[in-house]
Amino acid sequence: MIGIAVLGTGRIGRMHAENIAAHPRARLAGVYDINTSAASEVAAKLAVPQFESVEGALAASDVDAVLIASSTATHADLIEQAVEAGKAVLCEKPIDLSLDRVNECATRIAGTRLPIMLGFVRRFDSGHAGVRKAIEGGRIGDLHQVIITSRDPGMAPDAYIEASGGIFRDMTIHDFDMARFILGEDVAEVTATGSRLIDPALMARCDDFDTVTAVLKTSTGKQAIIINSRRAVYGYDQRVEAFGSAGMVISENRTRDHTRHFTVDFTDSAAPLKNFFIDRYADAFAAEISAFVDAITHGNPVPVGFEDGRQALILAEAAIRSAAEGRPVAIREIG
Amino acid sequence: MIGIAVLGTGRIGRMHAENIAAHPRARLAGVYDINTSAASEVAAKLAVPQFESVEGALAASDVDAVLIASSTATHADLIEQAVEAGKAVLCEKPIDLSLDRVNECATRIAGTRLPIMLGFVRRFDSGHAGVRKAIEGGRIGDLHQVIITSRDPGMAPDAYIEASGGIFRDMTIHDFDMARFILGEDVAEVTATGSRLIDPALMARCDDFDTVTAVLKTSTGKQAIIINSRRAVYGYDQRVEAFGSAGMVISENRTRDHTRHFTVDFTDSAAPLKNFFIDRYADAFAAEISAFVDAITHGNPVPVGFEDGRQALILAEAAIRSAAEGRPVAIREIG
Amino acid sequence: MIGIAVLGTGRIGRMHAENIAAHPRARLAGVYDINTSAASEVAAKLAVPQFESVEGALAASDVDAVLIASSTATHADLIEQAVEAGKAVLCEKPIDLSLDRVNECATRIAGTRLPIMLGFVRRFDSGHAGVRKAIEGGRIGDLHQVIITSRDPGMAPDAYIEASGGIFRDMTIHDFDMARFILGEDVAEVTATGSRLIDPALMARCDDFDTVTAVLKTSTGKQAIIINSRRAVYGYDQRVEAFGSAGMVISENRTRDHTRHFTVDFTDSAAPLKNFFIDRYADAFAAEISAFVDAITHGNPVPVGFEDGRQALILAEAAIRSAAEGRPVAIREIG
Amino acid sequence: MIGIAVLGTGRIGRMHAENIAAHPRARLAGVYDINTSAASEVAAKLAVPQFESVEGALAASDVDAVLIASSTATHADLIEQAVEAGKAVLCEKPIDLSLDRVNECATRIAGTRLPIMLGFVRRFDSGHAGVRKAIEGGRIGDLHQVIITSRDPGMAPDAYIEASGGIFRDMTIHDFDMARFILGEDVAEVTATGSRLIDPALMARCDDFDTVTAVLKTSTGKQAIIINSRRAVYGYDQRVEAFGSAGMVISENRTRDHTRHFTVDFTDSAAPLKNFFIDRYADAFAAEISAFVDAITHGNPVPVGFEDGRQALILAEAAIRSAAEGRPVAIREIG
Repeated sequence: MIGIAVLGTGRIGRMHAENIAAHPRARLAGVYDINTSAASEVAAKLAVPQFESVEGALAASDVDAVLIASSTATHADLIEQAVEAGKAVLCEKPIDLSLDRVNECATRIAGTRLPIMLGFVRRFDSGHAGVRKAIEGGRIGDLHQVIITSRDPGMAPDAYIEASGGIFRDMTIHDFDMARFILGEDVAEVTATGSRLIDPALMARCDDFDTVTAVLKTSTGKQAIIINSRRAVYGYDQRVEAFGSAGMVISENRTRDHTRHFTVDFTDSAAPLKNFFIDRYADAFAAEISAFVDAITHGNPVPVGFEDGRQALILAEAAIRSAAEGRPVAIREIG
Repeated sequence: MIGIAVLGTGRIGRMHAENIAAHPRARLAGVYDINTSAASEVAAKLAVPQFESVEGALAASDVDAVLIASSTATHADLIEQAVEAGKAVLCEKPIDLSLDRVNECATRIAGTRLPIMLGFVRRFDSGHAGVRKAIEGGRIGDLHQVIITSRDPGMAPDAYIEASGGIFRDMTIHDFDMARFILGEDVAEVTATGSRLIDPALMARCDDFDTVTAVLKTSTGKQAIIINSRRAVYGYDQRVEAFGSAGMVISENRTRDHTRHFTVDFTDSAAPLKNFFIDRYADAFAAEISAFVDAITHGNPVPVGFEDGRQALILAEAAIRSAAEGRPVAIREIG
Repeated sequence: MIGIAVLGTGRIGRMHAENIAAHPRARLAGVYDINTSAASEVAAKLAVPQFESVEGALAASDVDAVLIASSTATHADLIEQAVEAGKAVLCEKPIDLSLDRVNECATRIAGTRLPIMLGFVRRFDSGHAGVRKAIEGGRIGDLHQVIITSRDPGMAPDAYIEASGGIFRDMTIHDFDMARFILGEDVAEVTATGSRLIDPALMARCDDFDTVTAVLKTSTGKQAIIINSRRAVYGYDQRVEAFGSAGMVISENRTRDHTRHFTVDFTDSAAPLKNFFIDRYADAFAAEISAFVDAITHGNPVPVGFEDGRQALILAEAAIRSAAEGRPVAIREIG
Repeated sequence: MIGIAVLGTGRIGRMHAENIAAHPRARLAGVYDINTSAASEVAAKLAVPQFESVEGALAASDVDAVLIASSTATHADLIEQAVEAGKAVLCEKPIDLSLDRVNECATRIAGTRLPIMLGFVRRFDSGHAGVRKAIEGGRIGDLHQVIITSRDPGMAPDAYIEASGGIFRDMTIHDFDMARFILGEDVAEVTATGSRLIDPALMARCDDFDTVTAVLKTSTGKQAIIINSRRAVYGYDQRVEAFGSAGMVISENRTRDHTRHFTVDFTDSAAPLKNFFIDRYADAFAAEISAFVDAITHGNPVPVGFEDGRQALILAEAAIRSAAEGRPVAIREIG
């Protein structure tokens, strides 16, 4: 049994703690949060120790690994501390909002053989992963175009948006990683454009966008199109389409159950979409923990690592520059 | 060009007249209705002659065939007259509400080489016909079960129901023919049950049902299940499912257009179902005319003939007896 | 934490044991099987005690309840023993193949206040339960017709079929319970018919059927149609349709993931159906344990109890008689 | 009855001639083609006169309007001649490959009150038009994003591609018009990118692309994303998605019939997509003729006119420049 400590017991940390506690091959070694009452609540509920400090968690002999789910600004520091303490790491995205800080962190942990995994959970969704598998199995021939639709069910609170680093670093970063995952080759160029259609005042104040489109191109001409909105009133819209020389495969939305409804008012209506990322990607979050445990146990390479986190941020930086300057931005211009 | 006269210019006769007028290989030779103003309206609109009598229509040298769309009670007489006049016939279902009258008519027209076709239009629906084709092509292996869902969008007027001969002869008769079409072998036994759930008072008065289920079985054990309701508030529900040793094929409902709608209130909602048999089976009605014209022109056997009309009525009689007596009724008991 | 012992560690017992072990409010108190090596394997894997006898399990003070997943012939005895020992019971279906034995058991446990729950797991499926909820919420108005399609992915081994008590007691029993669950009122009459289309020789030898249809009717005229096959080559086909005066709701099949595939050979093809009852109803099995734990903890009535098991068997008996005698069988004729 | 002459009896001209001949409010006045044998075949089949020259057609007193379906290079000349002769015009897209020629034609016909309609047939598709109607009816609130997927079923012959004026003028032009139709406001900027993935050699020789993406933006920030491929092996892929503040509406693909297939090899597979533009848009082509006849008869403005043809070409020019220069191109830079 792999002992894992969870650092950060906000909404997503709590969910991870529960998944680890329920995992057949992992053990929740304890939890820590700077907000001690939040941590003690989770510790009590799951009947595990509460660490008094990060240092305490990292010093514990029954802690093999840490899951970092604290605020973004602490991620890089915690990765560095964990590596120094010899602990494997599963870190929520993004590594940091600053590419310089990410690069610095990369330098500091260079050479470690510890598994350092990034929490791009969508790679573990059976539908999205099924798209990748279909491509690898040759079912659509040569890949030509990838279309990623990713719309949040509702605007995050203003304070969240203001501290988010902007839509490309905060939200689209998942899609940049998905594009890399599905494309299977390096992106050469990003062209992005943003609009302020949902909350123009907030967006103007933050110099941010709520509605964006990004077109990515590889050196061989493969295209990935990312379509984002901060608010889809019908729920959490998460689709991936891959088109190739021999066919197409689509990963579809998930509804709350498998019913269809017919009345005077509507025809063949599905149940509502799963509306919250923790519900929508529940299976994927569990599979992510399994993959992490397997990487530690068997010494497998992590399926998505630090460099993937860095590359996604590079795409975000390119998109930011593209949208600001109104031109395609070559990846080689960044970082 | 085959010249066709339309006898009966009610709702369905008008529709047939328009289809014939628009058909590239047929010519609308004229129309007749006992209601002369109804007939003259159609004649004027389509710029064709109005016959003053059935005899006049049957005597016209440019009339090669007649389409009988008058009231049910006149069908058998008109078939006999047309055959005597040497005209091909396409007759709306049913031939008659009385099996005795149908048998008498069969005797009188026995030996004719004229094409006598029955208007079981659903055989010409691309979806339902696609089910039959899939079976013939071996795509589902040996056929085991057929499920026919057939629900009208709304109750017909009381007067219609009262004169209809009952749901089995009036409505289910389409499904009996569909069952025969899909099964591809003779039905040996019918078990039917009826309920009065939509308009119990009217149904009791007419000794009729508004909600029925019939289970048909062939001598080899194939099963066909027919599910009927006189009123589906969501529209005209017309589905056929065929299940066999190697797979299943389903003919699905038709919506008014191919849009899908997502809002706060509904998810992936289709456009409303086509709500009226003339819309739902528009393509099938046109294909039916083509098949009739082809049978006349090339001397092909008609795809659905007088005997098919008689057999469907026999199944209806068996269902009526089964529902009344609460027992399976063998087809050999009837007629 | 409720302590639950699992009696019987075959395929389904093992699955239940794992679900109990992973449940946040239950504790797997130990396992027992007459096949001691099967039991010890499960005990070792889940790190729980192995009981040496049923008596040992029932005597253990940390056992609050038992889950009976042993062979059918032992169910009634074990229920009686458990009740005598003061333990709550969750028993796999059926209670017994003999209605007399079930009635005897009912008499013996009469008056117990212990939760006695029957394992009709499909009631806990979110789709099927969603159909029931839609009805209760008035979304389809008055219920008129229920259509339950239930086809196994493949024939069970001959030995299983031979000892199964026949398709109606073994397989359709789930659908009889589902019909009762969805109808929400008592069935008055059953008409069933069976065919031998998949393995005629085996079926003739066992006086059994592999392809059956049953039509159930309540005293108010509601109809439920059950469509069964022992082998659907395309996977485990599990659908429920409820039709009423104000609409229709359908619980659809489950696929392995949410991808759609388009190639030269097929269009908009789904991933394969979940093919095994343990996968298809995985969520439902977990929800079933939760409902059982809640019934024990809060003293709630069990959502599906002994009498539900008895009523489903009565419907099976009626169906057997109906298929044998070729007539509708009134429920009051049975038991 | 409006008399319409068809100029050009290639594949699309023949189809239009048949639609006009079958139209209840139009009359096919005759046909002309520089290839006289092609024209005489159509004239014979439809039993209409064959004109010996364009001048002859335009001089005929029973010709109220002309449908121009000849080669692209003749369109502008024929429009000018028809207007001079006082005939209404329905012209296939594009008006010309040269924007200068289009502008010249615009000048020459300026001030005419004759209906001049452009054959952007997709506007008449019930699905795509249903999207526009949903927007106009306020069903999705404020429009934010439009996604148009438009993939041909197979590469046109090399000679066609070579003379086509490039993918943006030849194929994407339909999507540019669709974007304008759905957006309902002027496009301000186009960013396009192209790849050579299907036939790189041919594309390099023609300085053309076979796989393109274009992102259009209006001055208010609405986005339209066009996704094109010259070859989708699974058929003619034609979808439109509109996303707004209150919901989403999607126009889906069309299959050959409404069957679904389940076997060992595939699950819930649809019939193949309609594979040819004449089949896929058959209803739309008929509706287009109706709209033209209505415009002539009632003096309604044409639903899609000369200026729409010019604007679509401007977007194509902008896309060509954008793809060539690797930058967004403002519409005001063109023409």
